[in-house]
Amino acid sequence: MVNPDFLSDNAHGCSPEVAEALVLAGEGRMAPYGNDPITRRVRTRCCELFETEVEIFPVLTGTAGNALAIAAMTPPWGAVFCHEDAHIHREELGAPEFYTNGAKLMPIACTPGRPDGKLDRDSLAHALAGGKRTKQAIPACLSLTNATEAGTVYTLGELLALCDLARQHELGVHLDGARFANAIVTLGCTPADLTWRSGVDILTFGATKNGALGADLIVVFRRELAAELALRYHRGGQRLSKMRLLSAQLEAYLTDDLWLRNARHANAMARRLHAGVAELAGVEVVRPVEANIVFPRLPSSLAERLQKEGFAFYNWSIFGDDVYRLVCGFSTTEEDVDALLEAIRR
Amino acid sequence: MVNPDFLSDNAHGCSPEVAEALVLAGEGRMAPYGNDPITRRVRTRCCELFETEVEIFPVLTGTAGNALAIAAMTPPWGAVFCHEDAHIHREELGAPEFYTNGAKLMPIACTPGRPDGKLDRDSLAHALAGGKRTKQAIPACLSLTNATEAGTVYTLGELLALCDLARQHELGVHLDGARFANAIVTLGCTPADLTWRSGVDILTFGATKNGALGADLIVVFRRELAAELALRYHRGGQRLSKMRLLSAQLEAYLTDDLWLRNARHANAMARRLHAGVAELAGVEVVRPVEANIVFPRLPSSLAERLQKEGFAFYNWSIFGDDVYRLVCGFSTTEEDVDALLEAIRR
Amino acid sequence: MVNPDFLSDNAHGCSPEVAEALVLAGEGRMAPYGNDPITRRVRTRCCELFETEVEIFPVLTGTAGNALAIAAMTPPWGAVFCHEDAHIHREELGAPEFYTNGAKLMPIACTPGRPDGKLDRDSLAHALAGGKRTKQAIPACLSLTNATEAGTVYTLGELLALCDLARQHELGVHLDGARFANAIVTLGCTPADLTWRSGVDILTFGATKNGALGADLIVVFRRELAAELALRYHRGGQRLSKMRLLSAQLEAYLTDDLWLRNARHANAMARRLHAGVAELAGVEVVRPVEANIVFPRLPSSLAERLQKEGFAFYNWSIFGDDVYRLVCGFSTTEEDVDALLEAIRR
Amino acid sequence: MVNPDFLSDNAHGCSPEVAEALVLAGEGRMAPYGNDPITRRVRTRCCELFETEVEIFPVLTGTAGNALAIAAMTPPWGAVFCHEDAHIHREELGAPEFYTNGAKLMPIACTPGRPDGKLDRDSLAHALAGGKRTKQAIPACLSLTNATEAGTVYTLGELLALCDLARQHELGVHLDGARFANAIVTLGCTPADLTWRSGVDILTFGATKNGALGADLIVVFRRELAAELALRYHRGGQRLSKMRLLSAQLEAYLTDDLWLRNARHANAMARRLHAGVAELAGVEVVRPVEANIVFPRLPSSLAERLQKEGFAFYNWSIFGDDVYRLVCGFSTTEEDVDALLEAIRR
Repeated sequence: MVNPDFLSDNAHGCSPEVAEALVLAGEGRMAPYGNDPITRRVRTRCCELFETEVEIFPVLTGTAGNALAIAAMTPPWGAVFCHEDAHIHREELGAPEFYTNGAKLMPIACTPGRPDGKLDRDSLAHALAGGKRTKQAIPACLSLTNATEAGTVYTLGELLALCDLARQHELGVHLDGARFANAIVTLGCTPADLTWRSGVDILTFGATKNGALGADLIVVFRRELAAELALRYHRGGQRLSKMRLLSAQLEAYLTDDLWLRNARHANAMARRLHAGVAELAGVEVVRPVEANIVFPRLPSSLAERLQKEGFAFYNWSIFGDDVYRLVCGFSTTEEDVDALLEAIRR
Repeated sequence: MVNPDFLSDNAHGCSPEVAEALVLAGEGRMAPYGNDPITRRVRTRCCELFETEVEIFPVLTGTAGNALAIAAMTPPWGAVFCHEDAHIHREELGAPEFYTNGAKLMPIACTPGRPDGKLDRDSLAHALAGGKRTKQAIPACLSLTNATEAGTVYTLGELLALCDLARQHELGVHLDGARFANAIVTLGCTPADLTWRSGVDILTFGATKNGALGADLIVVFRRELAAELALRYHRGGQRLSKMRLLSAQLEAYLTDDLWLRNARHANAMARRLHAGVAELAGVEVVRPVEANIVFPRLPSSLAERLQKEGFAFYNWSIFGDDVYRLVCGFSTTEEDVDALLEAIRR
Repeated sequence: MVNPDFLSDNAHGCSPEVAEALVLAGEGRMAPYGNDPITRRVRTRCCELFETEVEIFPVLTGTAGNALAIAAMTPPWGAVFCHEDAHIHREELGAPEFYTNGAKLMPIACTPGRPDGKLDRDSLAHALAGGKRTKQAIPACLSLTNATEAGTVYTLGELLALCDLARQHELGVHLDGARFANAIVTLGCTPADLTWRSGVDILTFGATKNGALGADLIVVFRRELAAELALRYHRGGQRLSKMRLLSAQLEAYLTDDLWLRNARHANAMARRLHAGVAELAGVEVVRPVEANIVFPRLPSSLAERLQKEGFAFYNWSIFGDDVYRLVCGFSTTEEDVDALLEAIRR
Repeated sequence: MVNPDFLSDNAHGCSPEVAEALVLAGEGRMAPYGNDPITRRVRTRCCELFETEVEIFPVLTGTAGNALAIAAMTPPWGAVFCHEDAHIHREELGAPEFYTNGAKLMPIACTPGRPDGKLDRDSLAHALAGGKRTKQAIPACLSLTNATEAGTVYTLGELLALCDLARQHELGVHLDGARFANAIVTLGCTPADLTWRSGVDILTFGATKNGALGADLIVVFRRELAAELALRYHRGGQRLSKMRLLSAQLEAYLTDDLWLRNARHANAMARRLHAGVAELAGVEVVRPVEANIVFPRLPSSLAERLQKEGFAFYNWSIFGDDVYRLVCGFSTTEEDVDALLEAIRR
């Protein structure tokens, strides 16, 4: 039997508050297609949380959220700049290309000596200079992920520098926030600071990986983009008739700081794991641990033994043949972490 | 405040069994992306229910289910034949066109004197004869809805005649089963009879309108279509990481005949409503009532009064300016129906 | 051996002036991609001819011209209204759907009793009323053909009435002018009157059917559409490096009224054919002959005999099983016509 | 006035034989859409030339030819491997993405120390290893250019090594032969050797850059791809009614070795230019000169002076800020070359 302890944040269930909200949401009749009171309350809550008027679109998957958000800012002949390890480029089987009707992703290679999964202003500037050859594609969008796929976090300063450059080149800015909560608790900043105040136009606000049972949310700060996005949302088969299935989860997620509490816990578990691993001679961790993921380099014999003992996790070969990804979630316990450390030590 | 009693099956909540299943599904860790035990059980259950090996793809919306199913059988230059009032043609903002990368829907007009929302063999044959002009589009798919958007039900004989003709022309056959349960209980036949035994290749098996909180299911009978469909599913942003959100609902839906009990009740409420309305002098019902929908012709003054009194329902102008759609759902009560009849009589 | 005398305007060669222009165009070096003097002169000539500033895009095929023009005004979720017999709907294998990334063509059936292949204001108004259901597609474009596929010609008044209605509904107007010259000589009006002064935004100005060897021209009157169209043109593989191949033909076509002389001749030959056919007892012509095409109803035995004798023409079954299409071109001679009449009489 | 002497092969006119063929092609009536004798003869000629049965599709532009050929082998979720400087990736504004409905180009960076614009087996193998992550895109196609955009030529051995590897990974192989003739005369091999015998499935056979006035040709060796390609060709607006416009040029091009004579001359002029430039102190040529292009590094003051004196050529910054591209064509004369060398020496 698989025991997917460190496999993915997606392997965890949901917070009890989310389950409870689902039960309540199942009762009674409500107008369909988002005209229900729960969805309206989620929108209001988001306006408060982000300290500005926003439009929202609940989605079932981060892939749909990212692809719709990017399509809202990118014509078919547009270029989307992103890190070469971005989820939109590596893992979504061309969903952004599908939703944009064929735009071109422009993956930017890691700056040598900076293996933190982040773009910097120089590498973006270099890519944009190449982007001047407008017979290739018309630069349209910058897509960043925070926390990144490498488990690192863009600081406000880094984010601002990138968004500024994007703005100078008239790019829209999309933030893939599959682990937005993890970034917020690391930085201790406000959601407004980490998004529109820094220059983000649309956020894909993840909840699935952090305590929901399956719900993400597109948050549109540049509100003039919302009308067309609503059409793409419908046409993409993402517009839920019983919107409350998603909205109820999102409401619980944003109530009483559940989202922050969950992320804080997951990050703490990752730090505990990192600390334990760092003590072990011969185990290098190849990425800074700033969110809820740890990337150790392990002898393959050790990795195989751990997996045989029931610890589930992926080999992450794009970071090195012997690198593995250990993900902590909102329901990871200290006992889970200590059991893994114990097993490594054996 | 809107009281959407007869507005839509989508206005209803979910069955308690579904809510309970969601709570259980939220517990513990499971492998993501459908490799969880609940999803596996749903597949097994479907194989039993349909008495054959099937492949399944849980989806959030019927629109996504329909569009993916059609795209699995239709190239970009393909023609999709359907009734002119089909949901895929009227209500989905071009989702089939999007997922097929630009196929052409070929809506077939109602046969005069047959206002039952159903295609017949002759009208399909006529459309296919036109389809021979292969500079227009290459005939690829027949999409039927059962129960139809008009609240009527194709009999097994009618379905077989259409599927046979489709097969002769080498078309794939898609069945939009948003109200599949309502058709099954009307006909008293088996799910196998109403699908693959009659010639259906892919079913979009609706649960959302009939007791789920938001879950439909693509059921693939022609299994060689599944491998490519899996790629479209991922790329379309429909592949849920925590698949259990949908699978748990579907499992409850298919357990202890919940799906049939719910549909039987909704159909009975529609018959009760129809019987009551039929007694009223001057109220014509413009479509046969064979599932859970009643389409009466009402004076607009009456319709407006009812709506003011809190009865929610849509004007259905494609059936006539003064025609209205009254939908009964799994949670519609006899009291709901009687209250509406009472109000009409006043 | 096929003798395609009345098969198609596309069966004819080119005017000697066009051949001569091609020879001259082959000499010497010129800047590529339309930055050559010939293309510039064609643009200047078009501005004069249409009495306004226009942008132009030479294209190889009418299909490409139509699809690009429509795509310039129609989003993927847009509706394109057209006659049910329009070339864009019947003959282009979904090119408009391809170039628009999946827009929906809304073919409008002939008004009963008006079998002239033309839309009228009422039928368009009716279709637009249906188009209010914006869950189907967002009305975006009206595409008309003049002269029509039925060999008839919209008068200025008819065109104006349709364009006015389109404008009220905020539709762009595309004119498929594959036989624009034939319409102009029938009406005796100016090109400006038959296009932008009546409300046309983009014209596909055909030359291939009327004396060029293969060259059509997109003429953009609503010039703010040109910048994006230029990108679609490049991305669609239509942007010719040696643009002079097309421009030289177009320049000759528009010089010394060659285009009008050719069309006048073709129309005259069709009138001669019509007059001859009308004299024959038992031969009905099912469409008014207003341009260069005659649609007689012929006994199939007669049609077969004629074809055996070497007269090439198509059966045109969408107008009736025993209807045939006889097309006169710029190089059809009186002898050609009389030989056919003679053969029919035998 | 621009004197585009070394700007582009596209700046040249056409060979007299091509002009003559166009004049002849303009005479008389022929069946449209490729059913004419000239097109049939071109197909027969290609079967002889390539020593195998082929299917052909004349196209107006290399961009259309490349995009159609790639789309014939690549699904929307497919990956197309190519050199990072490939024309399909750099210059076509996403035409391959458009025609494939959103496939992903996987540009492969130059191997350091091998600045010859060619892929080698190792770099392709490395990219394909990455391509195993099938959540990114499904490896579908390898697209090579020969002669390359860098003016170099893959040897038969190099081509075979790449195609073998592609075949092992079940990729289709496309050859962009915009300068195919230049490669053939450099290698002295047969067209069959440089295509299907080495493993190429579809060739885009360029004529426009080498003596035609505007005509390229898709040559399909894997003939089972042709039926679907014919549909894409029509739908893409590339299917010419008067096919003879292109076929006549292609027939002349392939008669009496015109295509080889033209390419031999252009290559010789490039060698003469190279030899002259190499003698000049301080002028480095940054790519091997194996076809008809020379890439010298020039002081910007010199480049500007030359351009002021009327010598037209592009700065080619992707090879270095001070690198320029000098292209020789079939009509470049020794006097042209010597005049440029003279001007450089001044």
